[in-house]
Formats: sequence, structure tokens, C-alpha cells
Amino acid sequence: MPLERSWIESANSPETDFPLNNLALGVFTADGVQRCGVAIGDRILDATGLEEAGLLTLGDTPVLDLPFWNEVMELGPEAWTALRDRLKELLREGAPERDIVTSLLHPMDGAELHLPFAISEFTDFYAGRHHATNVGTMFRGAENALPPNWLHIPIGYNGRASSVVVAGTDIRRPWGQLKGPNDPGPRFAPSARFDLELELGAIVGQASDGTVTVAEADAMIFGYVLLNDWSARDIQAWEYQPLGPFQAKATATTISPWIVMRAALEPFRCASPAREVALLPYLEEPGPMLYDIALEVDLTPEGASPTTIARTNYREMYYSSAQQLAHHTTSGCPMNVGDLLGSGTISGPTKDSRGSLLELSWGGKEPIPVGNQTRSFLEDGDTITLRGTAQGDGYRIGFGPCAGKLLPALADPYAR
Amino acid sequence: MPLERSWIESANSPETDFPLNNLALGVFTADGVQRCGVAIGDRILDATGLEEAGLLTLGDTPVLDLPFWNEVMELGPEAWTALRDRLKELLREGAPERDIVTSLLHPMDGAELHLPFAISEFTDFYAGRHHATNVGTMFRGAENALPPNWLHIPIGYNGRASSVVVAGTDIRRPWGQLKGPNDPGPRFAPSARFDLELELGAIVGQASDGTVTVAEADAMIFGYVLLNDWSARDIQAWEYQPLGPFQAKATATTISPWIVMRAALEPFRCASPAREVALLPYLEEPGPMLYDIALEVDLTPEGASPTTIARTNYREMYYSSAQQLAHHTTSGCPMNVGDLLGSGTISGPTKDSRGSLLELSWGGKEPIPVGNQTRSFLEDGDTITLRGTAQGDGYRIGFGPCAGKLLPALADPYAR
Repeated sequence: MPLERSWIESANSPETDFPLNNLALGVFTADGVQRCGVAIGDRILDATGLEEAGLLTLGDTPVLDLPFWNEVMELGPEAWTALRDRLKELLREGAPERDIVTSLLHPMDGAELHLPFAISEFTDFYAGRHHATNVGTMFRGAENALPPNWLHIPIGYNGRASSVVVAGTDIRRPWGQLKGPNDPGPRFAPSARFDLELELGAIVGQASDGTVTVAEADAMIFGYVLLNDWSARDIQAWEYQPLGPFQAKATATTISPWIVMRAALEPFRCASPAREVALLPYLEEPGPMLYDIALEVDLTPEGASPTTIARTNYREMYYSSAQQLAHHTTSGCPMNVGDLLGSGTISGPTKDSRGSLLELSWGGKEPIPVGNQTRSFLEDGDTITLRGTAQGDGYRIGFGPCAGKLLPALADPYAR
Repeated sequence: MPLERSWIESANSPETDFPLNNLALGVFTADGVQRCGVAIGDRILDATGLEEAGLLTLGDTPVLDLPFWNEVMELGPEAWTALRDRLKELLREGAPERDIVTSLLHPMDGAELHLPFAISEFTDFYAGRHHATNVGTMFRGAENALPPNWLHIPIGYNGRASSVVVAGTDIRRPWGQLKGPNDPGPRFAPSARFDLELELGAIVGQASDGTVTVAEADAMIFGYVLLNDWSARDIQAWEYQPLGPFQAKATATTISPWIVMRAALEPFRCASPAREVALLPYLEEPGPMLYDIALEVDLTPEGASPTTIARTNYREMYYSSAQQLAHHTTSGCPMNVGDLLGSGTISGPTKDSRGSLLELSWGGKEPIPVGNQTRSFLEDGDTITLRGTAQGDGYRIGFGPCAGKLLPALADPYAR
């Protein structure tokens, strides 16, 4: 599919994340009020204003009056298609509504962005084979790198929805229980091994109340965001046996401000890798369920220039979001509109394609260069920025930058 | 504190769970509409009706117009006290409002009960020492029963709020990935080792956005429910390494229909057990934080009589809910009104005080008698009923029965 041209010239640039083909959805502040918006070139279209003006009608009652996209999700896939079709009508080259729509455009530069949807529950997976192999090798040795279940199950665990924040939100280095392998006991101190995780987040747009197939799961996915699952490796190492990560992952998870709808990614579908062992039938994919999305991680020390510390691609995953969601329902677990599923860390096969500092610095043993500094784990003042783009024919689909800055730990977290 | 006498005679019986001292909160259907209700003797007082009639004013606007108690929680501890004070005024012996209040009473027997609050997120803990020792001994041997972190951390993991149901809801035996130790690979089949877990659930009634002390955490707890964390042991055994239980715990968690407010349990506070190793200062308790609540588990096979398979007490826990909540916030994890914290399985030191069939039947090796049958794990048609009572001077505080019946697995969970 070629570029779909818009009368908004900046949307036709091959350098924008937001051509007419994308139509990513967010929430922004206009005149002091949070409103639903659509990214188009270097502008944000006030979708709530479109609905108020009678230019966009999706349901019997307003669905964009509250500042999140959940109500549109609830309307279901036909409404999702209708939304895109109508937005394209209004924004395509030659659209007759140009004048009135122009009055609803706001500059993206400097806009205040918010969480684009109300997050119901958050589940994180561990479904990238390179990542699981790297981490497993560090913790259990190369012979036992992959747990016995790994090639059969998209391993997941429940995260904490309350800790999900939108890009641009500062992150505070957490305190926690830490114990080095030779320490006699734990101490309570700021995390010294605070890390990022490069992930893609899938947004569940339809509820279910029983087991769903992979095809059904794919159809339930409304769209995707970039996701940084901040992780305190030292807290994790001491707490995670036997019931998994808990406080290590509860400080914050940052998502990109823009939801890229599944429809915008259709041209970029690609197959999962060959299976070393056959999957159980309930996990078999009816077609390609990954996407060719180039990803990169920039680290910007306080007052310094950014360094790209990793480049990889979402097609490196072993399990797709649709498989993860299908597995999530096997027990009968009800899924709700607004559930967020993290893909798991997306690492590639090479050293420079690893999606966490844990892997990039090999547990801190091989610090990586960052400008004229080095990093094993994050330092106070570091900003991490994730980027993701699917390259089309003369255009690209992007998520906008997913950035977060690490602030120093509080001197005393119990000071009142 | 002695019995507080009510003009509702059934509330003065030493056999009721719901004397005036209790005032447990629930949601029930009256005339086809879900309303907030207060348990009193063998009656439910329509609290929404009280508010509508101007007999109960907690906020500037109605807070009982929606069928859950979250809005009352949001008002904060002073409103919680005001609620109890006003209900006692209206219901005490000699209250002048008797006639009008009588018109708002409904029989509890046969009432349709609903989830008493909207559950924000659900966290489950592993904080009973007898339970952790039993399970650890079965899985890792007596020498390694307690993980090294266990005496330092109230180990917790995030559960799935969407799967929490009210007592009386039937539970469907789940399918899942199963693999016996000698099987060459996993298969997808109904769980054959489906179990219960006897727990107490603490309800977070105030939000936080940073670390809180144990004292602050205790003050944030609105009340408690009985909680049965249904668990598929065979799914759990295959999936839980390395990131913890996921689908094994996602079929359902049943809570009692009545919230017992923290204030009603004050006379029953008791201290945590002696600590084998000192806790870090942030986990030290400023006073007794457990409660003397006698607990029992009844198993009723289809068409048969109930057998009490376990009797224990909440005071057997090693970590209190206040400690669990304080630990939950160490990373800065935001807590919200309506968060639910499961205590972890409450087992006592003796064989007949174990809070799960896994422990009672020692992993299925020692089936227990149930009437003229035996049980290793649950059979289709079994009903599990949890009961909890704190025994006062001539009265008791109870939660009402927390029951759930296990239905057979679907023949084909993908049949449409």
C-alpha cells in the first residue's frame, strides 16, 4: 500500500510517524481540557471536537466525551473501521471539509499528552527467545538458559496497571529490599541496578469470558503502543523466587502516547520464527501475527546527547500478542476492554540488538559506551527513549517517542 | 466489648454473624435493582434507601447510588466512622427511627448478593508460614522448604481482578497446559488437580502514591472479606517457573459477599508470631496487626452432606495485611481504592488445620475422608464453603458463608 496523501502537507513527508495511513490515537490537552486526538503529520486533530461538531458519529451517544479511547474500543471492530474510514474522508487530499477540520487542528509540538486509554489490567510476557536465552544464560548457565516450558507456553505474569504512565512522565528510582549473593541479609536501599525493557504493548479492545482462539484473539486487539517496562534488577533477583517479579516491576511502566491501530499495521504483518518444537494446537497461528517494526532505544545522559544503545525489530519475537492473549484465556480468565499486554523484552540475535541494559552490559560485566561515558545500568538523570517504525512504500508508521527520565531516589521515602 | 443490642431481635443472637457490632457491607438485589446493603441479624438494611430517604448522609452528594461501596471508601476514615455511628444510632435498641427503618429491611435468606465493591487490582500473598513450609517441603524438600527471602519479605504476586467473583458463583473447571514429570511434552486438557485456598482478603480503602509505613497501611484498610483463591495445581506446576503462577490462578477467586469493616474487628487484634530473624525496620509493626478469626473449610460433594475438612485461625499468619500493603508500596507502586490483597493460604500447624487440599492430601498422596468418600483434589460438583468468625463476649463477628461449586470442564472450550 502506498502513501495515502492528506491535505495536511506534513502528513505526506516520509519522515513523519503519522501519515494518513497511520491515524494514531491519543489524548491531549486543548484549552485546559483533556480531549481525544488523532495524530496527523505535525498536528493533532481534536477528535472530541469532531464528534461535538457532528463530523464524526460512531455510536448512538457521544463516545469521545471522556478523555480516553475505551468507549470506541467497546463499540467493536466495525466502529474501529468506521472511525478510520471517516478520518480518511476528512483528511485526504481534496476533502471538502478542510476548512472546518482545520479549525480543530493543534500543533503536536509542545502538546501535553496523557494516557490514551484507561488501563484495565496489565500483563507482561517473557516471549522473546533471544531475551529469555540471554537472561537464562546469565542466571542459570547456557545449558539451562530456557526453562523447560518456554518453547511450549508464552510465559506471562500479571503486572500492575496502576503503575502505567504515559511517555514524558519522570520516573523515580525506587527503594527496595536488596541482598547481594554474599551479604548476610537484605537491606532496604535505593535500587542500584535500575533498567529498561524495550517492549510492544497490545491493547485488548474487546472483552471475553472464556477461551478464545488465536484468530479470535487477534481480532480482539485494538492496537499497539511502545512500552518500557522499567525493572529494578537487584530487587528482582532477591524477590522473584518462587512467585515471580513484584516490586521490581511496580515502580512504573511507560507507554507511548499514541495508539497505532491494528489496521494501520496490517501491511507489515510477518510470520513468527520456525518452531523448534510444535506448539499445541490452541497456540497455532492462522496466519502471520508478528509485525515488521524497527525498534531502537536511545539513552540520553543528563545534559548530554542521545546514544542509540540498541536496534532490533518486533519480528524477533517467538510468540505474538495474539498467541499471548489466546493463552491468557485458557483458564477462562475474563479479559476486558483496556487490558494491556506487554510483549516481553524484544532482543535480537546480536549484541547491539538487546532490549535491556541487563543484556547489553551482560549483567554489568561489560559496560557499554554512551557518548564519552559508560553504562551498566541507568544513572540518575538518564532519559530512555524508545522509537518504533514500520517502513512502508514512501511512508512510515510510527508511535512517536516513548521517553522517560530517571530521577534520583528520595533521600528518605518515609519522610512526611 | 459486649454485644451491642439492636431492636432487630435476630441481631442479638449469639449465633448470628451480623450483630450490631458487625455492620458488614454488601450489595443485594431489591425489586430488581442492585443496592448497597448492611447485614443485620437475618435482615439486610437497604443503605441506598437510607441515603435516598435522607436518613444517612455521608458526602455532599449521594455515595450509595451505585451498587458498590467504593465511593464510601473514597470519603476516607472519618466517613467510615460516621457510617458506623449513624447505623448504630438507627439500629440500636430504642432507636426512634425504628418504623421507617423497618420499611427498608429485606430478608437475607434467599437474597441475591453481588460483589460488594468494584475491584481495582488484586494481589495475592504467600505469607502463611505453615503453608509455605508445607508446600516448600513437598516441592523442594524439608531442608529447602522456605525460600531464602521468605522470612524477610511478605512474598506477593499480582493476580487477576477480572476473575474475582462473589460467593455463590459457580466455578468452571479450567483447561490448561499440563505436563507430568515423566510426560515427553505438555498436553492441553482439563485440570485434574483443582484446589481451593483459604485466605482473608484485605480491601484497600484509600489511595497512595508513594511508600507507606505499616501504621499508614493499616489505616488505609477499609475492611476484610473471606477469599478462596481457586488454584489449578497441575497448571501451576508446569507454568510457574520462572515468573510465577498465571493461568493456574486466573479461573476464579471467590470472595464473601459481606465486607467486615476493620473497625468491627478491632476487639480481636492479636500479635504476629515471634520473628525468627528481625524484620527490616519498614516492616516492623507498631502494634498487633493480626486478628483472632476462627476459620473453617467445608467440602460438600454433590448430593451429600458437608464435611469440615480444615479448621484454623487468621492469627496463624506470619505477615499481616498491613505489612503486605506497606511492602507493596516500597517501589512507589500506586495503590487505589478497591485494591484487594489476598493474605495467602492460612494453614495452622496441625494436619487438620491446612488451608488447601494440596496440603491436606499431601500432594494427593494421602487422600482425606469426606463423608463416605475421599478427596485428593476437588471433584466435579463439589462445593467449598469458607466460614470465618471472631468470637466476642456474647456475640460473634462473621462474614457469612463464602461458597462456590465446581462445575465440570467444558467438553470443548473452543466449541462455538
